[in-house]
Amino acid sequence: MQVALRDAKSIVPSSHSPIVPTAAMTTLSQQQWIYRQQPLAQITTEHYELVERQLDTGLGADEVLLAARYFSVDPYMRIGQSGKPTYDAEPHPLNTVQQGGVVGQVLASNAAGYAEGDWVYSYSGWQTHAKVHASGLKLLDPAQAPVTTALGVLGMPGRTAWFGLTESGRPHAGEVVVVSGAAGAVGSLVLQFAKRHGARVLGIAGGRAKCDWLRDTLGADWAIDYKVHDSADSLGAAIRAATGGVDVYFDNVGGMVTDAVIPLINRRARIVICGQISQYSGGLDTPELGPRLLHHMLYQRATIQGMLARDYVHRMDEMVRIVAPWVRAGQIVFEETVVDGFAQLPAALNSLFTGEHRGKLLVKA
Amino acid sequence: MQVALRDAKSIVPSSHSPIVPTAAMTTLSQQQWIYRQQPLAQITTEHYELVERQLDTGLGADEVLLAARYFSVDPYMRIGQSGKPTYDAEPHPLNTVQQGGVVGQVLASNAAGYAEGDWVYSYSGWQTHAKVHASGLKLLDPAQAPVTTALGVLGMPGRTAWFGLTESGRPHAGEVVVVSGAAGAVGSLVLQFAKRHGARVLGIAGGRAKCDWLRDTLGADWAIDYKVHDSADSLGAAIRAATGGVDVYFDNVGGMVTDAVIPLINRRARIVICGQISQYSGGLDTPELGPRLLHHMLYQRATIQGMLARDYVHRMDEMVRIVAPWVRAGQIVFEETVVDGFAQLPAALNSLFTGEHRGKLLVKA
Repeated sequence: MQVALRDAKSIVPSSHSPIVPTAAMTTLSQQQWIYRQQPLAQITTEHYELVERQLDTGLGADEVLLAARYFSVDPYMRIGQSGKPTYDAEPHPLNTVQQGGVVGQVLASNAAGYAEGDWVYSYSGWQTHAKVHASGLKLLDPAQAPVTTALGVLGMPGRTAWFGLTESGRPHAGEVVVVSGAAGAVGSLVLQFAKRHGARVLGIAGGRAKCDWLRDTLGADWAIDYKVHDSADSLGAAIRAATGGVDVYFDNVGGMVTDAVIPLINRRARIVICGQISQYSGGLDTPELGPRLLHHMLYQRATIQGMLARDYVHRMDEMVRIVAPWVRAGQIVFEETVVDGFAQLPAALNSLFTGEHRGKLLVKA
Repeated sequence: MQVALRDAKSIVPSSHSPIVPTAAMTTLSQQQWIYRQQPLAQITTEHYELVERQLDTGLGADEVLLAARYFSVDPYMRIGQSGKPTYDAEPHPLNTVQQGGVVGQVLASNAAGYAEGDWVYSYSGWQTHAKVHASGLKLLDPAQAPVTTALGVLGMPGRTAWFGLTESGRPHAGEVVVVSGAAGAVGSLVLQFAKRHGARVLGIAGGRAKCDWLRDTLGADWAIDYKVHDSADSLGAAIRAATGGVDVYFDNVGGMVTDAVIPLINRRARIVICGQISQYSGGLDTPELGPRLLHHMLYQRATIQGMLARDYVHRMDEMVRIVAPWVRAGQIVFEETVVDGFAQLPAALNSLFTGEHRGKLLVKA
């Protein structure tokens, strides 16, 4: 559905003064974050370079020119910076614009169905402007849901949470679901989706504030701050005391948290490996050592299943059909943490692994 | 089917002089291996005590008196000696007869359908004689297959191999199946079953002789001696050079071999955790450290599934319907290594983890 520009403008951050292309304009000043160097541990600005160039605004057939408004930063980006094969055979190419999901507005259109001012989703990466073929765009309707939800609950993180839980976790009413990284973009949704399945849900997160939020706002039955535990045994004892045992473990973090959960699985437990963020800043290249625990899979005839959001792109409509009404009805909490400024992108990405954000982390252009 | 005593006798080892009960006999000298002490590493005779007692031969309703002829020693026995909960909540009880599968002959019967001389399977454990209720017996037909197959290819190991491969591994023609512990009771069957599914099969075993046997006798496409590799990287390079990548990994051993395979899995690979024998002599109580590799599950959207033979007891007929004709036609290699003498039982059990046997390890009474 197309949106009247007036409506769209109402949620454009006031700091924006979009450059409106005219027949006379042929170039536009574009900023880009170029991925320059593989990080071996934490990401810093030395791994990226901010460049400015002139973008020829001439449009080919079925192209639009868009101005990015919101950038997604996601943990998978750090996986793509591993030196070893990961979800793709090759790492993110050096000396190219950092890839990533963007919500932007159409500045000029040469494509049917897209008009100036339209809000769109595009995988156009860390650049302030981009020319994108219409086949790489998704039109957004601000009247249906805030446009930023295309990067969160109604986008990749929501798809990951929904299909990871329903296809791999398969929770039943009364079962115990444990979610690690429960305050994050995916985890906070998994927690709520699991509650809607009738499960009893334990969220694990770092810090008391996040844990209070999991319980008080998201409705977790239990929340545990892993940071107050200095060993998997100690954390495991707390999880056992709360839950008695684990039927579904939705894992976003790996490491010590997972070490604590695996010995507590119940018969035929399902472990969903959605992320291993504790390992991303180095551990993918040189694996960290941890206890060997696969024997528990045998005892409990349990399953570990890895999943990626990309496998469910073609099933997005199934998720939207169910979750979008919940979003419109205000029945799902989809908190966003918005960092202001294109210049903050590398720091924001790094903060996924160190920071205190809740829900979906976005950078506003 | 019942067996004429004459037929049965023809495969009774000549060293046996079964005690034939008479109306006058009321007791019988019985030897038992009592499990006395939890081993923390390797099993030695100090963990067991050989005792001799008089067994009252009087039989209750539906009971038979059997003389054990062959004892099974299986890796799972060592799991039951862990101090922590494993497949059962409690470890094998101390100061009781070591549990285990037995093939024996009926000495006296008070149960319909069982006659003196009949061959039976029973879970009567490490004792030379036992009184067993008919509900705990399975009548064997020596005309159909050697009676020892009830402890191997047509018993628990065969069931484990068949259902572990078909239900969890689910190999397709042309896929690469890797089997660890490939010269063992389960692994040697998995290897052959996978070949029959049209897969290309790599067997991993310790020592050149075993590897030659995997290739030359069992029909493995490739065999790798893990003992010539001093690291998972080195072993992994050899596996990659042979196979290019792994679709199904049937794991009996865990440890370094599994560390080598996991980074080589293909998209949607299935890893079957059937055993982790490299960890049984201590690692179940105090986990060994190994590299964290669960991120590979994510990249490849792969599955790790633990399985136990007990889950398929009720489906034994499905396996026998298919595999027994192969056994009768001589189309399955089911090599047995037979250790002579009841006194050898603890040493034989320990040799599962250190020894050079091929196929199914049995102890002859």
